[in-house]
Amino acid sequence: MSDKNNKKIKQNISVDEYYKGILSANRVILSKAITLVESNLDEHYEIASELIDKCLPHSGNSVRVGITGMSGAGKSTFIETIGMHVIQSGKKIAVLAVDPSSERSKGSILGDKTRMEQLSASENAFIRPSPSGGILGGVGRKTRETIILCEAAGYEVIFIETVGIGQSETLVKSMVDFFLLIVITGAGDELQGIKRGIMEMADVIAINKADGDNIEKAKTTVAIYQNALHLFPEPESKWLPKVNYCSAIEGTNIPEIWKMINKYIDFTRKNGFFDLNRRQQEISCFYSAIDDNLKHLFFSNPTIKQKINDIKSLIEKRKLSPYQAVKEVFKKFFDNKL
Amino acid sequence: MSDKNNKKIKQNISVDEYYKGILSANRVILSKAITLVESNLDEHYEIASELIDKCLPHSGNSVRVGITGMSGAGKSTFIETIGMHVIQSGKKIAVLAVDPSSERSKGSILGDKTRMEQLSASENAFIRPSPSGGILGGVGRKTRETIILCEAAGYEVIFIETVGIGQSETLVKSMVDFFLLIVITGAGDELQGIKRGIMEMADVIAINKADGDNIEKAKTTVAIYQNALHLFPEPESKWLPKVNYCSAIEGTNIPEIWKMINKYIDFTRKNGFFDLNRRQQEISCFYSAIDDNLKHLFFSNPTIKQKINDIKSLIEKRKLSPYQAVKEVFKKFFDNKL
Repeated sequence: MSDKNNKKIKQNISVDEYYKGILSANRVILSKAITLVESNLDEHYEIASELIDKCLPHSGNSVRVGITGMSGAGKSTFIETIGMHVIQSGKKIAVLAVDPSSERSKGSILGDKTRMEQLSASENAFIRPSPSGGILGGVGRKTRETIILCEAAGYEVIFIETVGIGQSETLVKSMVDFFLLIVITGAGDELQGIKRGIMEMADVIAINKADGDNIEKAKTTVAIYQNALHLFPEPESKWLPKVNYCSAIEGTNIPEIWKMINKYIDFTRKNGFFDLNRRQQEISCFYSAIDDNLKHLFFSNPTIKQKINDIKSLIEKRKLSPYQAVKEVFKKFFDNKL
Repeated sequence: MSDKNNKKIKQNISVDEYYKGILSANRVILSKAITLVESNLDEHYEIASELIDKCLPHSGNSVRVGITGMSGAGKSTFIETIGMHVIQSGKKIAVLAVDPSSERSKGSILGDKTRMEQLSASENAFIRPSPSGGILGGVGRKTRETIILCEAAGYEVIFIETVGIGQSETLVKSMVDFFLLIVITGAGDELQGIKRGIMEMADVIAINKADGDNIEKAKTTVAIYQNALHLFPEPESKWLPKVNYCSAIEGTNIPEIWKMINKYIDFTRKNGFFDLNRRQQEISCFYSAIDDNLKHLFFSNPTIKQKINDIKSLIEKRKLSPYQAVKEVFKKFFDNKL
C-alpha cells in the first residue's frame, strides 16, 4: 500500500468510525482497519493502538485455529471446504494468511487469485491475505492485532494459515488455541519434509488428498504418523494428538476433523489448559508489543532518523563498520538516558 | 549452555586471549568465542562487542556461501563432499548451521550426531551447529558476528546451511555472497515444495541425488528448473542463475558446482555487484545491530526488569491486557526520554 492510500484512510475515517464499523461487522471497514494496523507509518501508530484498545473488550471469544503444511499439501482447498462446513453450521469465519512470501516479487508460485472461491463469495467469511512484511517487519507482525479486530467484528472461528515449515509456525502456535498440520502421502519418505518441531506442535494431523487411488496409501500414512507421534513426550495440554485422513476436494472426513477440533477445545477448556495457554500467549504478546513499541519510539524520533541517515552514508563509504556505526548512534542518544 | 559454564568462560579467558586465540586459528578458543557472542547474558554483551571490534579488521576476506533446501535434499552430505573438495584445493572452510530447530525438544528428526564425519575429522574444517535461539532470540541471531570471527581465524570459505524454506533464507541471503539451492527430483510436482521467493534468491540450483536410476529423472528436473527460471526478472547481480544435477554421495558434478561458485564470484567482482552487495549487507547488519543494542539496553536495565516482572503477574491475573501493560512500562520509563 502506498503512502498516498494510507493517508486517504487516515483522512476519511476516525478511530470511532473504525470502531463502530468493526462492531457492526462492516467488512470494508474491517479490512481498512487491518491495513491501518499493519501500516509502518508513524502517523498510523497511535490511531491503530487506540483502535486495538477499544476493540479488546469485544475480543477473545473465537476459536483460533492454526493450519500449516508444506506447499502442495492442499491447505487452501482444505480451508475452503472446512470453512464452508463451519459456515453451514451457523458460524462466521475469518481466514488470515501468515506467509513469508517472496521478497522480490511477492506472492506464491501458484498465485492467490483463484484460491477459496466459495469462501470469498460467502457473506459469513472474511479472508485476509498475507501482509507484505519484508525483513524488518517480519512474518505475521500484526497477526495478533488482526485477530482482535476480527473477533470484535463477530467472527467466531479464525483460521490462521501459514506456509513454510519453519519459523512462522512457532509464531502462529503462540497465537492459536488449536494447531492442525496438513500433510499428504509421500514417496516413501513421508516424515522427511516435516520437521520434528512442527509435528510436536500439532494437535491433529490430517493426511489430505485421500481420494481416488490414494486412499489406501493415505491410510498407511496415518499409521506411520501415529507411530511417530508415540515417540514424542506428552504435550502440556495432555491431549494426545490425533491423525486422520481426509480429502478436501471430495469432502471426505472434513466434518470429522471439525469434530476433532471441537473435542480438543472442550477437552482443554475442562482441564484448564485452554485458559492457561491464552494467558501464556498474552505474555508473549506483551513481549512482542514491547519490542514493537521500543522500535517505534526509537525510529520515529526525528533526530535519530537524521543521525541514522548520516551514519548510513559513512557505512556506504566504508568509513565506519556497522558495529562502530551503532555505537555512534547510541553514544549520542542513550547516554544517561536509561 | 548453563550460566555456570558461561561464567567459567568469562573468568578464564580475557578479550585479548580470545583475540589472540582466534588469530592463531585455535579452534577451541574460536568455539568458545562464538558461544560468548551467542550468549544472552548481560555480562557477556560488552566483552563480545569488544571482541568483534578487534576481529573486524581481519574479516571480510572469505567467500560466503549460503546453502538451502528442504529436509531430505541431502544438504549435509553435499556440504561434506564439496567441503572436502575445497579443502583438497588448499583452502580452510567453516560450516555454520542456521536452523530454526524444534522448540520443544531441539534438533532435527534425523539427529545431527553422524553428520559430516569426514569434515569433522579434518584439521582444515570448522563446524558449528545451530544455536538454540528460541522465539525471542530468533533464527541466526548472531550468524553475522560468527562469520567475522571465523574469517579472523583464517577460514577462506564459509558455508552457511539453512533449513526451512522460509524466513531463515531471507536472513541468510542478507549475509552471503552466493546462494545455492539444493533440491531433488520429485514425484511430478518438482516446483511445488519450493517457494518462488527461494528460487529467486538462488544463484545456482543443484539437483542432488542424481545417482543410480535417478540420473535421467534428474536431467529432466534440470530442464524444468531452467524453464521456471526464465520467468523470473533479471537479478540485480546480472548473473543468470544456473542449474546442474549432482550426486553428493558419488561425487558427481561436485567440482563443477564449486567451479560455478567461483565463476559467480569472479563475475560479480568484475561487474561491481560483489562489493555493492557487501555494502548493502552492512546496512542491514547496522539495522539488526541497532535492534539488538536497543533490546539489550532496555531489558538489561534493572528497574525495567523489575517493572516487567510486576506487570507480567498483572497480565497473568487478567488485571491488564498485554497492550495496556506495555503502555504502563513505557509511560514510566520513556516519557521525555527520547
